[in-house]
Amino acid sequence: MGQAGGPTTVANASLFGFLEKALPRCELYGVINGIEGLAEDMLVPLTNETVKRHRHVREMPGAWLGAGRWPAREEDFEAYAESLRRRDIGGLALIGGNGTMWSCMQLERAARSIGYELAVVGIPKTVDNDLAGTDHSPGFASAARFVTTVVRDVGKDLESMRNFEAVRVLETMGRNVGWLAMSAAYLKNHREDPPHLIYAPENGFSQSTFLEDVQQAYQAHGYAVAVVGEGLLGRARREGDENVKSPLIGGVSRELAALVQENLGLSSRGELLGMAQRSYSLAVSRRDREEATLLGAEAAQLLEEGESGVMIALERRPASLYEVEVRRVPLTQVAGVERPLPEEWRATSGGTAPESFVEWLRPLVGEELFSYPQNLLPESTLLSEEP
Amino acid sequence: MGQAGGPTTVANASLFGFLEKALPRCELYGVINGIEGLAEDMLVPLTNETVKRHRHVREMPGAWLGAGRWPAREEDFEAYAESLRRRDIGGLALIGGNGTMWSCMQLERAARSIGYELAVVGIPKTVDNDLAGTDHSPGFASAARFVTTVVRDVGKDLESMRNFEAVRVLETMGRNVGWLAMSAAYLKNHREDPPHLIYAPENGFSQSTFLEDVQQAYQAHGYAVAVVGEGLLGRARREGDENVKSPLIGGVSRELAALVQENLGLSSRGELLGMAQRSYSLAVSRRDREEATLLGAEAAQLLEEGESGVMIALERRPASLYEVEVRRVPLTQVAGVERPLPEEWRATSGGTAPESFVEWLRPLVGEELFSYPQNLLPESTLLSEEP
Repeated sequence: MGQAGGPTTVANASLFGFLEKALPRCELYGVINGIEGLAEDMLVPLTNETVKRHRHVREMPGAWLGAGRWPAREEDFEAYAESLRRRDIGGLALIGGNGTMWSCMQLERAARSIGYELAVVGIPKTVDNDLAGTDHSPGFASAARFVTTVVRDVGKDLESMRNFEAVRVLETMGRNVGWLAMSAAYLKNHREDPPHLIYAPENGFSQSTFLEDVQQAYQAHGYAVAVVGEGLLGRARREGDENVKSPLIGGVSRELAALVQENLGLSSRGELLGMAQRSYSLAVSRRDREEATLLGAEAAQLLEEGESGVMIALERRPASLYEVEVRRVPLTQVAGVERPLPEEWRATSGGTAPESFVEWLRPLVGEELFSYPQNLLPESTLLSEEP
Repeated sequence: MGQAGGPTTVANASLFGFLEKALPRCELYGVINGIEGLAEDMLVPLTNETVKRHRHVREMPGAWLGAGRWPAREEDFEAYAESLRRRDIGGLALIGGNGTMWSCMQLERAARSIGYELAVVGIPKTVDNDLAGTDHSPGFASAARFVTTVVRDVGKDLESMRNFEAVRVLETMGRNVGWLAMSAAYLKNHREDPPHLIYAPENGFSQSTFLEDVQQAYQAHGYAVAVVGEGLLGRARREGDENVKSPLIGGVSRELAALVQENLGLSSRGELLGMAQRSYSLAVSRRDREEATLLGAEAAQLLEEGESGVMIALERRPASLYEVEVRRVPLTQVAGVERPLPEEWRATSGGTAPESFVEWLRPLVGEELFSYPQNLLPESTLLSEEP
């Protein structure tokens, strides 16, 4: 069992779901630091005792086994497979994103090519929600919950400070896709509420439209809050393999804020919503944690049944009440495939998201969240006459 | 009643504490946008009906009346006083930081100088905790709660990503003082836990020491997390009056990260913990909200008693159980006075804070917070022998 790529708030829930299901019946090893652990043969035994002693780790963000990125090339996987064979490993589950699914696929192929029967199963995990083959990935819901609440709260702060700062550009994670950026609209109730603008990378970018949008929003509300996905300016160039060292991304918001300042002369700041998006424990969605646990357990079940070459996934039943069922997707269909926002969920106007997207998001982030009323305005209730 | 300066998560709790106490007995007006509202005569009537209809605003971050900064000079306050006199206002309470207390003092003086009997009371509010005359200020505890949990959580993420990023410099608010930066140590349990280094502005800054510290922390832990106060490099030049337009601050973390990259050749990023520090509702400390409400109510009481020229404040009783009593401090003793960390609370080593500071902080941020165990390490449990 290993964890790879960037961690999330619920990657350890998947780990513990897996361990609790698998341990009574198997001997188990943890792969340290994801693909690096495969490359460098860093395994630690995980026992019932380990799990019992560390059960609170389930609720801890990050990756207890260590995760991270590692520059693995296709030709490296035969050696990884050989190394696992020497330890007489029968099955491997990796928790990760689409780069990790690519590694799972390579490893399974490499093992087969050397006549080694190794079952490999992938467990999805990404805050970006860019994994194909699943309704959503564990990790995303909690990140979306953080994004929508922090945009609401920071937005309220900015509304209260109108006379100090005109424009704030808030930057979400998400690499090339706009799932998290669009989630910022979830708690927007009125046209006046922040965010006033959302830019998902899928929609491309036009500087002149952006500046017009900001100018209009500022004129309408007296301040403007824009949310942008980190991949908007093509920074988050798609890597195919998340284990290949990728350039540090982030900074679109600052570039755009500078653009606003220069062209519109409005005081403006860019702000990255930061690592808290994928790690802040106070924002965890309960459902996200439950589903992460479930998928871990189901992956253990699959391995035991000898299933291989698949990612475990969530399929939403077309019911009015939220229900998911667990399915398996061939790794070949998800490995290195990027899942953008569907066309019909890219439409955004005045910082809103399509209603069907909001409905899709509702059961994931939790219904107990609420929108704020507007601040008092001098215009609406001003005592303009002398008493 | 007005709110001024930068808002906090509990500035509206103070507002509602005040309104609920004052309204049954007075006619009340809200000053819109803080000092701007005084300058521009923007007042709105606040009635029992308003409070009843908007009672959930109590738990909303920001400033419901609008706050913000305004370039008021000493000579402007006579006009503000005249304007209040024309409305026959008998008393004014402002929620704010030390700039706001300065404005309260100026207004009270100006009123006296024109023979107008105006009672002025200040209600403390600052996430920086830089107000003198009080054990702590409402707003700080919630911000500290955010800082310590987010540093713990982001730190866990970075620990999990050791093989990807070596050094992260996290930047807290706090202007010239290190109360929030030091709070990051609260959930640190073991030497190995992040943060590994803390830099409070009160301690000054030496580039060579900083680089040595980072190098050592990196060597000891395989990664390093440093927390720095935004005022560390003298950016946050003290304004005396928070209503005077001050330069946008923030960015020390990025400068220091660049320094690390250049001089130590370690991959490094700076990250501002951002506006969420003073606005994130999911991190609010219950006690902070209660105390904010209490001070609002007590200020109303003082005004009714005809008291003037004071800030309402919290004094901690020297008891083993946390208890505070409310006191009043002359505005002349707090206006524009900065309250740094006391000498004995500046000592920091390996990312720790003095034990007495941690004990002081405990009842403010809430005891239900916990530290995380370390991730599994290959060295400690590695199966180094071939099976």
